[in-house]
Amino acid sequence: MSKEIVFITSNENKFREAENLINPLGFKLIQKNPGYPEIQTSSLEEVVRYGIKYLKDRLDIFFMEDSGLFIKSLNNFPGVYSKYVFTTIGNEGILKLMEKTENRNAVFRTVIGFYDGKAKIFKGECEGKIANETKGDHGFGYDPIFIPYGSEKTFGEMKTEEKNQYSHRGKALKSFIQYLKQR
Amino acid sequence: MSKEIVFITSNENKFREAENLINPLGFKLIQKNPGYPEIQTSSLEEVVRYGIKYLKDRLDIFFMEDSGLFIKSLNNFPGVYSKYVFTTIGNEGILKLMEKTENRNAVFRTVIGFYDGKAKIFKGECEGKIANETKGDHGFGYDPIFIPYGSEKTFGEMKTEEKNQYSHRGKALKSFIQYLKQR
Repeated sequence: MSKEIVFITSNENKFREAENLINPLGFKLIQKNPGYPEIQTSSLEEVVRYGIKYLKDRLDIFFMEDSGLFIKSLNNFPGVYSKYVFTTIGNEGILKLMEKTENRNAVFRTVIGFYDGKAKIFKGECEGKIANETKGDHGFGYDPIFIPYGSEKTFGEMKTEEKNQYSHRGKALKSFIQYLKQR
Repeated sequence: MSKEIVFITSNENKFREAENLINPLGFKLIQKNPGYPEIQTSSLEEVVRYGIKYLKDRLDIFFMEDSGLFIKSLNNFPGVYSKYVFTTIGNEGILKLMEKTENRNAVFRTVIGFYDGKAKIFKGECEGKIANETKGDHGFGYDPIFIPYGSEKTFGEMKTEEKNQYSHRGKALKSFIQYLKQR
Protein backbone atom coordinates (compact mmCIF):
# COMPACT_ATOMS: atom_id res chain seq x y z
CA MET A 1 0.00 0.00 0.00
CA SER A 2 1.35 3.43 -0.92
CA LYS A 3 1.93 6.07 1.73
CA GLU A 4 -0.56 8.87 1.90
CA ILE A 5 0.45 12.54 1.98
CA VAL A 6 -2.05 15.33 2.49
CA PHE A 7 -1.66 18.43 0.31
CA ILE A 8 -3.57 21.41 1.72
CA THR A 9 -4.79 23.35 -1.29
CA SER A 10 -7.97 24.53 -2.96
CA ASN A 11 -6.18 24.77 -6.30
CA GLU A 12 -6.76 21.78 -8.61
CA ASN A 13 -3.93 22.84 -10.90
CA LYS A 14 -1.37 22.92 -8.10
CA PHE A 15 -2.62 19.55 -6.92
CA ARG A 16 -2.18 18.08 -10.41
CA GLU A 17 1.35 19.46 -10.71
CA ALA A 18 2.28 17.88 -7.37
CA GLU A 19 0.62 14.55 -8.24
CA ASN A 20 2.59 14.41 -11.47
CA LEU A 21 5.85 14.39 -9.47
CA ILE A 22 4.88 12.63 -6.26
CA ASN A 23 2.64 9.74 -7.27
CA PRO A 24 5.24 7.98 -9.46
CA LEU A 25 7.37 7.58 -6.31
CA GLY A 26 4.89 5.33 -4.57
CA PHE A 27 3.12 8.00 -2.53
CA LYS A 28 -0.56 8.73 -2.75
CA LEU A 29 -1.41 12.42 -2.71
CA ILE A 30 -4.66 13.42 -0.98
CA GLN A 31 -6.18 16.87 -1.43
CA LYS A 32 -7.69 18.61 1.58
CA ASN A 33 -8.93 22.13 1.95
CA PRO A 34 -9.65 22.90 5.61
CA GLY A 35 -8.96 26.62 5.10
CA TYR A 36 -6.47 28.63 7.09
CA PRO A 37 -5.82 32.35 7.50
CA GLU A 38 -3.22 33.68 5.08
CA ILE A 39 -1.53 36.67 6.64
CA GLN A 40 -0.56 39.89 4.88
CA THR A 41 3.22 40.00 4.71
CA SER A 42 5.80 40.35 1.99
CA SER A 43 7.15 36.86 2.63
CA LEU A 44 5.74 33.58 1.29
CA GLU A 45 7.54 31.73 4.06
CA GLU A 46 5.70 33.67 6.74
CA VAL A 47 2.37 32.85 5.12
CA VAL A 48 3.23 29.17 5.09
CA ARG A 49 4.63 29.10 8.63
CA TYR A 50 1.52 30.84 9.92
CA GLY A 51 -0.66 28.32 8.07
CA ILE A 52 1.22 25.41 9.60
CA LYS A 53 0.88 26.89 13.07
CA TYR A 54 -2.85 27.20 12.49
CA LEU A 55 -3.38 23.64 11.21
CA LYS A 56 -0.86 21.59 13.15
CA ASP A 57 -3.21 20.73 15.97
CA ARG A 58 -5.84 19.50 13.54
CA LEU A 59 -3.80 17.36 11.16
CA ASP A 60 -0.93 14.91 11.67
CA ILE A 61 1.07 14.97 8.47
CA PHE A 62 0.51 17.49 5.74
CA PHE A 63 2.10 20.05 3.49
CA MET A 64 0.97 23.34 2.04
CA GLU A 65 2.53 25.78 -0.36
CA ASP A 66 2.35 29.40 -1.31
CA SER A 67 3.59 30.82 -4.57
CA GLY A 68 3.94 34.23 -6.10
CA LEU A 69 5.17 36.12 -9.12
CA PHE A 70 7.65 38.87 -8.27
CA ILE A 71 8.16 41.43 -11.05
CA LYS A 72 11.34 43.47 -10.64
CA SER A 73 10.29 46.72 -12.32
CA LEU A 74 7.08 46.71 -10.23
CA ASN A 75 8.89 46.47 -6.88
CA ASN A 76 8.07 42.76 -6.69
CA PHE A 77 4.36 43.26 -7.26
CA PRO A 78 2.14 41.15 -7.22
CA GLY A 79 4.31 38.97 -4.94
CA VAL A 80 2.55 37.39 -1.99
CA TYR A 81 -0.77 38.77 -3.25
CA SER A 82 -0.50 37.12 -6.67
CA LYS A 83 -3.76 35.24 -6.33
CA TYR A 84 -5.80 38.30 -5.37
CA VAL A 85 -4.20 40.44 -8.07
CA PHE A 86 -4.89 37.75 -10.65
CA THR A 87 -8.57 37.57 -9.76
CA THR A 88 -8.97 41.36 -9.93
CA ILE A 89 -6.78 42.91 -12.64
CA GLY A 90 -5.56 39.63 -14.17
CA ASN A 91 -2.90 39.15 -16.85
CA GLU A 92 -4.40 42.05 -18.78
CA GLY A 93 -3.68 44.36 -15.84
CA ILE A 94 -0.11 43.13 -15.47
CA LEU A 95 0.56 43.64 -19.19
CA LYS A 96 -0.89 47.15 -18.95
CA LEU A 97 1.37 47.96 -16.00
CA MET A 98 4.34 46.65 -18.02
CA GLU A 99 3.59 48.62 -21.19
CA LYS A 100 6.71 50.39 -22.45
CA THR A 101 8.73 48.76 -19.67
CA GLU A 102 12.05 47.41 -20.89
CA ASN A 103 13.09 45.50 -17.79
CA ARG A 104 10.70 42.53 -17.92
CA ASN A 105 12.58 40.34 -15.43
CA ALA A 106 10.46 38.40 -12.99
CA VAL A 107 10.78 35.48 -10.61
CA PHE A 108 8.21 32.87 -9.71
CA ARG A 109 8.72 31.60 -6.16
CA THR A 110 7.22 28.70 -4.23
CA VAL A 111 7.57 27.89 -0.55
CA ILE A 112 6.42 24.47 0.63
CA GLY A 113 5.85 23.86 4.32
CA PHE A 114 5.75 20.23 5.48
CA TYR A 115 4.60 19.24 8.93
CA ASP A 116 4.99 15.87 10.64
CA GLY A 117 5.48 16.97 14.22
CA LYS A 118 7.95 19.62 13.23
CA ALA A 119 7.87 22.12 10.38
CA LYS A 120 10.24 21.91 7.42
CA ILE A 121 10.50 24.45 4.60
CA PHE A 122 11.40 23.84 0.94
CA LYS A 123 11.83 26.53 -1.68
CA GLY A 124 11.90 26.77 -5.44
CA GLU A 125 12.52 29.65 -7.80
CA CYS A 126 12.18 30.14 -11.49
CA GLU A 127 13.62 33.24 -13.14
CA GLY A 128 12.24 34.50 -16.39
CA LYS A 129 10.55 37.32 -18.24
CA ILE A 130 7.09 38.78 -18.62
CA ALA A 131 5.90 38.21 -22.19
CA ASN A 132 4.50 41.06 -24.28
CA GLU A 133 1.18 39.26 -24.70
CA THR A 134 -0.60 36.22 -23.29
CA LYS A 135 0.27 32.91 -24.97
CA GLY A 136 -1.03 29.38 -24.47
CA ASP A 137 -3.88 27.90 -22.53
CA HIS A 138 -2.19 25.35 -20.32
CA GLY A 139 -1.57 25.94 -16.64
CA PHE A 140 -3.28 28.69 -14.69
CA GLY A 141 -2.80 32.17 -13.29
CA TYR A 142 0.15 34.03 -14.73
CA ASP A 143 1.40 31.04 -16.76
CA PRO A 144 0.41 32.57 -20.14
CA ILE A 145 2.56 35.68 -19.55
CA PHE A 146 5.66 34.07 -17.98
CA ILE A 147 8.60 32.82 -20.07
CA PRO A 148 11.17 30.92 -17.98
CA TYR A 149 14.85 31.38 -18.81
CA GLY A 150 16.02 28.60 -21.10
CA SER A 151 12.77 28.48 -23.03
CA GLU A 152 11.08 30.56 -25.71
CA LYS A 153 7.65 29.41 -24.56
CA THR A 154 5.41 30.71 -21.80
CA PHE A 155 4.31 28.29 -19.06
CA GLY A 156 0.91 28.58 -20.73
CA GLU A 157 2.35 26.84 -23.78
CA MET A 158 3.74 23.89 -21.78
CA LYS A 159 2.11 20.73 -20.52
CA THR A 160 2.47 19.89 -16.81
CA GLU A 161 5.48 17.63 -17.29
CA GLU A 162 7.45 20.21 -19.26
CA LYS A 163 6.46 23.04 -16.91
CA ASN A 164 7.59 21.01 -13.88
CA GLN A 165 11.11 20.81 -15.33
CA TYR A 166 11.47 24.58 -15.13
CA SER A 167 9.02 25.68 -12.57
CA HIS A 168 9.39 27.10 -9.08
CA ARG A 169 6.79 24.63 -7.79
CA GLY A 170 8.49 21.75 -9.61
CA LYS A 171 11.82 22.63 -7.96
CA ALA A 172 10.35 23.04 -4.49
CA LEU A 173 8.46 19.75 -4.89
CA LYS A 174 11.64 17.98 -5.98
CA SER A 175 13.59 19.00 -2.91
CA PHE A 176 10.57 18.09 -0.79
CA ILE A 177 10.45 14.65 -2.41
CA GLN A 178 14.17 14.19 -1.86
CA TYR A 179 13.55 14.77 1.82
CA LEU A 180 10.53 12.44 1.90
CA LYS A 181 12.58 9.60 0.39
CA GLN A 182 15.29 9.90 3.04
CA ARG A 183 12.88 10.40 5.91
CA MET B 1 -8.26 64.53 33.31
CA SER B 2 -9.22 63.43 29.82
CA LYS B 3 -9.94 59.79 29.06
CA GLU B 4 -7.28 57.91 27.16
CA ILE B 5 -8.05 55.84 24.08
CA VAL B 6 -5.44 53.67 22.37
CA PHE B 7 -5.36 53.74 18.56
CA ILE B 8 -3.44 50.77 17.15
CA THR B 9 -1.73 52.05 14.03
CA SER B 10 1.70 52.55 12.53
CA ASN B 11 0.37 55.28 10.26
CA GLU B 12 1.03 58.83 11.49
CA ASN B 13 -1.41 60.30 8.97
CA LYS B 14 -4.27 58.12 10.16
CA PHE B 15 -3.43 58.98 13.74
CA ARG B 16 -3.51 62.70 12.96
CA GLU B 17 -6.88 62.41 11.21
CA ALA B 18 -8.32 60.64 14.24
CA GLU B 19 -6.79 63.11 16.70
CA ASN B 20 -8.35 65.97 14.77
CA LEU B 21 -11.83 64.57 15.49
CA ILE B 22 -11.39 62.85 18.84
CA ASN B 23 -9.23 65.19 20.94
CA PRO B 24 -11.65 68.15 20.85
CA LEU B 25 -14.18 65.93 22.63
CA GLY B 26 -12.11 65.59 25.75
CA PHE B 27 -10.43 62.30 24.93
CA LYS B 28 -6.71 61.82 24.68
CA LEU B 29 -5.63 59.64 21.78
CA ILE B 30 -2.56 57.44 22.33
CA GLN B 31 -0.76 55.74 19.45
CA LYS B 32 0.46 52.17 19.89
CA ASN B 33 1.87 49.79 17.34
CA PRO B 34 2.18 46.32 18.85
CA GLY B 35 1.80 44.66 15.44
CA TYR B 36 -0.78 42.05 14.59
CA PRO B 37 -1.22 39.64 11.69
CA GLU B 38 -3.42 41.05 8.93
CA ILE B 39 -5.09 38.18 7.14
CA GLN B 40 -5.60 37.87 3.40
CA THR B 41 -9.31 38.20 2.71
CA SER B 42 -11.50 40.42 0.60
CA SER B 43 -13.16 41.97 3.64
CA LEU B 44 -11.80 44.82 5.76
CA GLU B 45 -14.06 43.72 8.59
CA GLU B 46 -12.45 40.29 8.71
CA VAL B 47 -8.99 41.88 8.92
CA VAL B 48 -10.10 44.05 11.82
CA ARG B 49 -11.94 41.28 13.67
CA TYR B 50 -8.91 39.03 13.35
CA GLY B 51 -6.68 41.82 14.66
CA ILE B 52 -8.93 42.35 17.67
CA LYS B 53 -8.93 38.63 18.40
CA TYR B 54 -5.15 38.69 18.32
CA LEU B 55 -4.69 41.72 20.59
CA LYS B 56 -7.58 41.46 23.04
CA ASP B 57 -5.64 39.47 25.61
CA ARG B 58 -2.82 42.00 25.58
CA LEU B 59 -4.67 45.30 25.78
CA ASP B 60 -7.75 46.45 27.71
CA ILE B 61 -9.33 49.18 25.63
CA PHE B 62 -8.26 49.97 22.10
CA PHE B 63 -9.38 50.46 18.54
CA MET B 64 -7.86 49.72 15.19
CA GLU B 65 -8.94 50.41 11.66
CA ASP B 66 -8.41 49.11 8.18
CA SER B 67 -9.13 51.08 5.04
CA GLY B 68 -9.06 50.41 1.35
CA LEU B 69 -9.76 51.89 -2.05
CA PHE B 70 -12.15 49.80 -4.14
CA ILE B 71 -12.13 50.66 -7.85
CA LYS B 72 -15.20 49.38 -9.70
CA SER B 73 -13.72 48.84 -13.17
CA LEU B 74 -10.81 46.91 -11.59
CA ASN B 75 -13.05 44.42 -9.74
CA ASN B 76 -12.50 46.31 -6.50
CA PHE B 77 -8.71 46.26 -6.77
CA PRO B 78 -6.68 47.27 -4.74
CA GLY B 79 -9.26 46.79 -1.95
CA VAL B 80 -8.00 45.15 1.21
CA TYR B 81 -4.46 45.18 -0.20
CA SER B 82 -4.41 48.93 -0.79
CA LYS B 83 -1.34 49.52 1.35
CA TYR B 84 0.75 46.86 -0.34
CA VAL B 85 -0.33 47.96 -3.82
CA PHE B 86 0.49 51.56 -2.97
CA THR B 87 4.01 50.69 -1.85
CA THR B 88 4.68 48.64 -5.00
CA ILE B 89 2.96 50.13 -8.06
CA GLY B 90 1.71 53.35 -6.39
CA ASN B 91 -0.60 55.97 -7.84
CA GLU B 92 1.32 55.82 -11.08
CA GLY B 93 0.41 52.14 -11.42
CA ILE B 94 -3.27 52.78 -10.66
CA LEU B 95 -3.43 55.57 -13.23
CA LYS B 96 -1.78 53.30 -15.80
CA LEU B 97 -4.34 50.56 -15.11
CA MET B 98 -7.12 53.14 -15.54
CA GLU B 99 -5.83 54.58 -18.82
CA LYS B 100 -8.64 54.79 -21.39
CA THR B 101 -11.11 53.58 -18.76
CA GLU B 102 -14.32 55.58 -18.76
CA ASN B 103 -15.87 54.21 -15.58
CA ARG B 104 -13.70 55.82 -12.91
CA ASN B 105 -16.02 55.16 -9.97
CA ALA B 106 -14.38 54.13 -6.75
CA VAL B 107 -15.17 53.85 -3.06
CA PHE B 108 -12.91 54.42 -0.10
CA ARG B 109 -13.94 52.25 2.86
CA THR B 110 -12.91 52.22 6.50
CA VAL B 111 -13.77 49.70 9.17
CA ILE B 112 -13.01 50.58 12.78
CA GLY B 113 -12.95 47.87 15.42
CA PHE B 114 -13.22 48.96 19.05
CA TYR B 115 -12.60 46.61 21.94
CA ASP B 116 -13.42 47.16 25.60
CA GLY B 117 -14.28 43.62 26.64
CA LYS B 118 -16.42 43.09 23.61
CA ALA B 119 -15.83 44.02 19.97
CA LYS B 120 -17.81 46.71 18.20
CA ILE B 121 -17.53 47.61 14.52
CA PHE B 122 -18.02 51.02 12.86
CA LYS B 123 -17.93 51.67 9.13
CA GLY B 124 -17.49 54.63 6.84
CA GLU B 125 -17.64 54.95 3.08
CA CYS B 126 -16.79 57.70 0.65
CA GLU B 127 -17.82 57.39 -3.00
CA GLY B 128 -15.96 59.25 -5.66
CA LYS B 129 -13.86 59.04 -8.81
CA ILE B 130 -10.29 58.30 -9.78
CA ALA B 131 -8.70 61.47 -11.17
CA ASN B 132 -6.85 61.48 -14.49
CA GLU B 133 -3.65 62.62 -12.82
CA THR B 134 -2.26 63.08 -9.32
CA LYS B 135 -3.13 66.38 -7.67
CA GLY B 136 -2.16 67.92 -4.32
CA ASP B 137 0.32 66.98 -1.66
CA HIS B 138 -1.80 66.73 1.46
CA GLY B 139 -2.84 63.43 2.96
CA PHE B 140 -1.21 60.15 2.02
CA GLY B 141 -1.62 57.05 -0.11
CA TYR B 142 -4.23 57.37 -2.82
CA ASP B 143 -5.41 60.81 -1.67
CA PRO B 144 -3.91 62.65 -4.69
CA ILE B 145 -5.90 60.53 -7.18
CA PHE B 146 -9.28 60.36 -5.39
CA ILE B 147 -12.00 62.98 -5.89
CA PRO B 148 -14.94 62.52 -3.48
CA TYR B 149 -18.46 63.19 -4.79
CA GLY B 150 -19.50 66.72 -3.94
CA SER B 151 -16.05 68.15 -4.52
CA GLU B 152 -13.90 69.06 -7.50
CA LYS B 153 -10.73 68.53 -5.48
CA THR B 154 -8.78 65.39 -4.72
CA PHE B 155 -8.18 64.45 -1.08
CA GLY B 156 -4.59 65.43 -1.81
CA GLU B 157 -5.75 69.00 -2.26
CA MET B 158 -7.58 69.13 1.09
CA LYS B 159 -6.33 69.79 4.59
CA THR B 160 -7.20 67.26 7.30
CA GLU B 161 -10.27 69.11 8.50
CA GLU B 162 -11.81 69.40 5.05
CA LYS B 163 -10.94 65.81 4.17
CA ASN B 164 -12.57 64.55 7.38
CA GLN B 165 -15.89 66.07 6.30
CA TYR B 166 -16.04 63.80 3.27
CA SER B 167 -13.84 60.91 4.09
CA HIS B 168 -14.57 57.26 4.85
CA ARG B 169 -12.31 57.44 7.90
CA GLY B 170 -13.95 60.67 9.07
CA LYS B 171 -17.39 59.04 8.84
CA ALA B 172 -16.34 55.87 10.63
CA LEU B 173 -14.63 57.94 13.33
CA LYS B 174 -17.77 60.04 13.78
CA SER B 175 -20.01 57.07 14.41
CA PHE B 176 -17.35 55.64 16.71
CA ILE B 177 -17.26 58.93 18.66
CA GLN B 178 -21.05 58.97 18.85
CA TYR B 179 -20.84 55.58 20.51
CA LEU B 180 -18.03 56.64 22.85
CA LYS B 181 -20.04 59.59 24.08
CA GLN B 182 -23.05 57.45 24.98
CA ARG B 183 -21.01 54.64 26.46
